[in-house]
Amino acid sequence: MDYEPSSGDSIRIKTEKGVYSGIVMPRHAFSRDDILLIKLDSGYNIGVPISEIKDMDILEKAEKRSKSSRYVPKGRGPKIGLISTGGTIASYVDYRTGAVHPAVTSEELLFSVPELADIADIDAKVLFSVLSEDMEPRYWTYMAEEAGKALNSGKEGVIIAHGTDTMGYSAAALSFALSNLTGPVVFVGSQRSSDRPSSDATMNLLSAARVAASDLGEVAVVMHGETGDEYCLIHRGTRVRKMHTSRRDAFVSPNSKPIGRATPDGVELNGHRKRSKGAVEVRPDFEEKVALIYAYPGMEESVLDSMLSDSKGAVIAGTGLGHIKSSLIDTVRAHIKDGKSIVMTSQCLYGTVNMNVYSTGRDLIKAGVISGGDMLPETAYVKLSWALANLDEGIGAFMKKNIAGELGEARYL
Amino acid sequence: MDYEPSSGDSIRIKTEKGVYSGIVMPRHAFSRDDILLIKLDSGYNIGVPISEIKDMDILEKAEKRSKSSRYVPKGRGPKIGLISTGGTIASYVDYRTGAVHPAVTSEELLFSVPELADIADIDAKVLFSVLSEDMEPRYWTYMAEEAGKALNSGKEGVIIAHGTDTMGYSAAALSFALSNLTGPVVFVGSQRSSDRPSSDATMNLLSAARVAASDLGEVAVVMHGETGDEYCLIHRGTRVRKMHTSRRDAFVSPNSKPIGRATPDGVELNGHRKRSKGAVEVRPDFEEKVALIYAYPGMEESVLDSMLSDSKGAVIAGTGLGHIKSSLIDTVRAHIKDGKSIVMTSQCLYGTVNMNVYSTGRDLIKAGVISGGDMLPETAYVKLSWALANLDEGIGAFMKKNIAGELGEARYL
Repeated sequence: MDYEPSSGDSIRIKTEKGVYSGIVMPRHAFSRDDILLIKLDSGYNIGVPISEIKDMDILEKAEKRSKSSRYVPKGRGPKIGLISTGGTIASYVDYRTGAVHPAVTSEELLFSVPELADIADIDAKVLFSVLSEDMEPRYWTYMAEEAGKALNSGKEGVIIAHGTDTMGYSAAALSFALSNLTGPVVFVGSQRSSDRPSSDATMNLLSAARVAASDLGEVAVVMHGETGDEYCLIHRGTRVRKMHTSRRDAFVSPNSKPIGRATPDGVELNGHRKRSKGAVEVRPDFEEKVALIYAYPGMEESVLDSMLSDSKGAVIAGTGLGHIKSSLIDTVRAHIKDGKSIVMTSQCLYGTVNMNVYSTGRDLIKAGVISGGDMLPETAYVKLSWALANLDEGIGAFMKKNIAGELGEARYL
Repeated sequence: MDYEPSSGDSIRIKTEKGVYSGIVMPRHAFSRDDILLIKLDSGYNIGVPISEIKDMDILEKAEKRSKSSRYVPKGRGPKIGLISTGGTIASYVDYRTGAVHPAVTSEELLFSVPELADIADIDAKVLFSVLSEDMEPRYWTYMAEEAGKALNSGKEGVIIAHGTDTMGYSAAALSFALSNLTGPVVFVGSQRSSDRPSSDATMNLLSAARVAASDLGEVAVVMHGETGDEYCLIHRGTRVRKMHTSRRDAFVSPNSKPIGRATPDGVELNGHRKRSKGAVEVRPDFEEKVALIYAYPGMEESVLDSMLSDSKGAVIAGTGLGHIKSSLIDTVRAHIKDGKSIVMTSQCLYGTVNMNVYSTGRDLIKAGVISGGDMLPETAYVKLSWALANLDEGIGAFMKKNIAGELGEARYL
């Protein structure tokens, strides 16, 4: 092949497998020299081995196409900040290994979804590039600071592109770190990378942009609402959980209803908090020494004790209405006497903790365990981490108070 | 009130709140002297303060009623063993405190559901009386031995009355401990004690009896299938999970379909394993030093290390497709080199682990982590506990092999 196509060129190629037309994608850190990455008109990306290309037509050179704003998006509409943090939505497939790697620049992300420019005037920034599973509380701090700064400097909303594994934790974190929200902070991710035909990246990102431009004054997660491409659901940041390893509609709101639906064409909101006036308050600190402990029949006193010893506080995902083995209560009591805050949630995930029904629960209350009500274990963990870093006293009362929609009414505290 | 009614008497009482007729319940450890417990004709139990009783008619004395078998059940039909282990289904409300306490005798359980005698010839036994949250691997051993003995001594099926908190763990345990099942081993519990109008105890127990008399050759859990009293679902013992703290239809089979439905009138089975011939093989040992570890963003190396140090093996409920923070992989690798078995599952609960997609997953595979496929974290934990107690080698291969329906086909091992 004589011609070396440039990023942004509109081309048509012929291979043994068929004819494809689309726009040449930019090269990135993991690009392979002998693979041409093309964004098809369908919105999906494919990697074609250059050796298999039999014929190629340049439909339009990038320079000439620049005015059409299809590949160098020049948005119109509300100013939205796009903060890229890593994850599949900002990833490329390494065609040598089949592995997925994070994209390095926000331009790559923007380029892959040029339709964003039709919805908003996007100001994109790669804050960091961290796999979802590698997120730690300090990244919550960075994201909270960045989102607060964006809203307080005139952005109408913020989109945070994030890996899906721990997106629920991060969304809960920003729900507590940011208050008096003057605009939406919208987490978005994708379950399938944009190189795959079944990718949800484009629709999720466009829907998230609609939500970021809406009247919402909360932290939310926007992801596919069903297995097709019909709509995305808008989940409250403190109520959302990834409940499937791979389905596009993996995110659900246990014990709560999503606060709306979105598509690339618009938004419907329901029971949401609206934008506040004034400035966003940012209190971005989190205590790192908090444990999330799953109760199980064989849990030994020594294991529980060492987890609690290493922590300033802990959330237990107990069984049923909020129980642990009664033989472990002494250990819990001792750590609470030492000044640690221990919160009970349920590994059932649905329903609410109620430690008044059975003797074990009442003994836990007497030992000073704080009821997590109907909070998700993950949300309670994040909330406790925030509370320990920001409050000098009253941790128990704070955990039992509804701060950001994380607690429902049908609860027994 | 001059007359002291006896257990089993059919009576009618008048109070300010209305007229009630039913059968006098036996007294038990937590009975209050000034409360009369009556099983109403509706099947529900009430406790009436004796001081509020204005009038009482004895409709039939217990001695005369004995031939009708309504309160001293004399069953007909298949011989079924009923093993009582504790939990709400075998509980009484202490009317002084409102607390629920375990029943002390199987007779109390049998008496409260006399209709059992219409379904089967029940041989009841209180094996122990342990709250669900207090179950430990050694109790799995006792239950497995008792269930195996019952089937091998001529019982056509076994019902195990068990608390709901950890019923899923116990059902999984017996699924591995018992093989070549010549009859059903049916766990049953109740989410609301039999003293409450909304109790599910009677219907669950009668439905379980139908399943215990069926052609099933598996360990199953029988609980309400919806919020009404329409039907119970029959869940495979290795696939079932309590997913709501209080609803009567709290039990579901993630990644799997229930293997049937049951009512007090009959059973429908689907895709189940049938009764085997010969004798049940009982291998009831479990290793107690196994940890179930929930991954979370702030997990520190020292916490993971101490949990693994205390264990002979561990199951991790990782994020997404089966991930932990990449900074923790060295710790995992070190413990695997020390000879420990570490299995990866997903805290998503739905879907399957696939450690081939992302770099973190592939690093975990290289470190020797065993994929748990689409097994529930709790089931993988129980299976590993069994494997470590019963196998000298080949733990990894065993964990990846479908033994009792715990692994589906759509998995990446």
